[in-house]
Amino acid sequence: MPPNPFLTTRRVEFCDTDMAGIVHFANFYRYMEQAEHTLFRELGMRIAGKTADGVVFGWPRVAAECSFSAPARYDDEVTIEIAPIKRTSRSLTLQYTFLLTDRAIARGEMTTVYCLIPPGEAMRAATIPDDWTSRLEAWERQIAG
Amino acid sequence: MPPNPFLTTRRVEFCDTDMAGIVHFANFYRYMEQAEHTLFRELGMRIAGKTADGVVFGWPRVAAECSFSAPARYDDEVTIEIAPIKRTSRSLTLQYTFLLTDRAIARGEMTTVYCLIPPGEAMRAATIPDDWTSRLEAWERQIAG
Amino acid sequence: MPPNPFLTTRRVEFCDTDMAGIVHFANFYRYMEQAEHTLFRELGMRIAGKTADGVVFGWPRVAAECSFSAPARYDDEVTIEIAPIKRTSRSLTLQYTFLLTDRAIARGEMTTVYCLIPPGEAMRAATIPDDWTSRLEAWERQIAG
Amino acid sequence: MPPNPFLTTRRVEFCDTDMAGIVHFANFYRYMEQAEHTLFRELGMRIAGKTADGVVFGWPRVAAECSFSAPARYDDEVTIEIAPIKRTSRSLTLQYTFLLTDRAIARGEMTTVYCLIPPGEAMRAATIPDDWTSRLEAWERQIAG
Repeated sequence: MPPNPFLTTRRVEFCDTDMAGIVHFANFYRYMEQAEHTLFRELGMRIAGKTADGVVFGWPRVAAECSFSAPARYDDEVTIEIAPIKRTSRSLTLQYTFLLTDRAIARGEMTTVYCLIPPGEAMRAATIPDDWTSRLEAWERQIAG
Repeated sequence: MPPNPFLTTRRVEFCDTDMAGIVHFANFYRYMEQAEHTLFRELGMRIAGKTADGVVFGWPRVAAECSFSAPARYDDEVTIEIAPIKRTSRSLTLQYTFLLTDRAIARGEMTTVYCLIPPGEAMRAATIPDDWTSRLEAWERQIAG
Repeated sequence: MPPNPFLTTRRVEFCDTDMAGIVHFANFYRYMEQAEHTLFRELGMRIAGKTADGVVFGWPRVAAECSFSAPARYDDEVTIEIAPIKRTSRSLTLQYTFLLTDRAIARGEMTTVYCLIPPGEAMRAATIPDDWTSRLEAWERQIAG
Repeated sequence: MPPNPFLTTRRVEFCDTDMAGIVHFANFYRYMEQAEHTLFRELGMRIAGKTADGVVFGWPRVAAECSFSAPARYDDEVTIEIAPIKRTSRSLTLQYTFLLTDRAIARGEMTTVYCLIPPGEAMRAATIPDDWTSRLEAWERQIAG
């Protein structure tokens, strides 16, 4: 089980800033993704690969949003807290709160869909494998306390 | 006056793609920003600089969201159509529709706020200058037809 | 035949800048790549795909360098001039000069190698297809005048 | 004193990859910069700020190069070893070796120059402050063994 609450931390790099002297807003979406991948790793899930049947799978985003209330700057240690928002048989919506020394500076949401890409076919949404659904359920229960 | 509808086009670069073979989703936010800046230029507005009184101004984002229905790939010519959604005395919300040969593949929204940074003070929202408000109004009327 | 000299132009985007107020140096490598891809397109060559035999090919970089003498800033129109430096049966080295209103602000070099990835095998360097070698030779003669 | 040899590690993020399935080469320059900044932090030096006299300083790059012998992929833990190459009164050249489980996959060099930007004047190279020169000398001696 991941720690509760689930927090990841990253230090803002120089190249993440723009001429306004703050982290360029598009990087918050990269930060959300990296936090999501860290959660997947902790849960023993994979973000891409092949199923036991050899079919390629992935988790493309269908929506991502973020609201910004204060900037982050070079060398800041930003903490990202992830919380579950919604889960369907095929999709996962998580909330990301960006904290700078305990103050929320931004909050976002991303929805990803489990997809299969059978050989020679287009990508299509599919049911999240049972094992992973169980892991996500256990994590949601843990967060819910 | 900018053309109506207001369209900008950009070609997907190799470095915009990820290992899934498609444009990484975070780049859509960069694309929205670049389209917004093109609109500002066409309207005779500036995205950053100093007021007549020498005060630094800018247009930080307070929110940005995007939904994705189909991927874009290397070398695709993506057209972005911008439409006005909402305007207050201090903020501007625009909608961005991403088109690939007339098919919408993604749609987003961004809200930016006009801000001043007086010397030695924190950034604060301010009333959009009258001249720019007039230009935005004229453009909104044009789009509304 | 591409125009001689071979020039491409791009406008610096806001997200290309950093907190020093100038284009972040790592973006110059992206700019070189995009200029190279524009040249390939003009020459009727492809940067990735499958050979007539169905083998995946690509042009990975083996080296890239750039020297910087003056900065580029937001909204600058940067012109990139490409010149041939060296060609072997398997590799291509091109020089990129970055110009801002006729002043050279940076100059770089990139070497790319034509590679095949046969199914189930590792990537390996291969002889550039004859048709493309002819096109590159014709371009080099044109540039040499 | 930083550890000897000076190593930093970073995990490849999904957005660092491109459609060839490997880390896009331009990211290696970002990685070098971030490793350099980690070294500066360990040495008690700053990459940007104001001198005691209130003059803005920075360390812009004048040259950066990298050679690539094998790819890095998503989730790889890449180790970067930094070694001193050359130092003048105003500039610093460091070498960066990228290791994947003890195998060198890329090697680069970057030269940065200590610069001052007096109010209303252009950026100009300046002598590296004595305190930092001492720290760099001590580090070089430590590496030289």
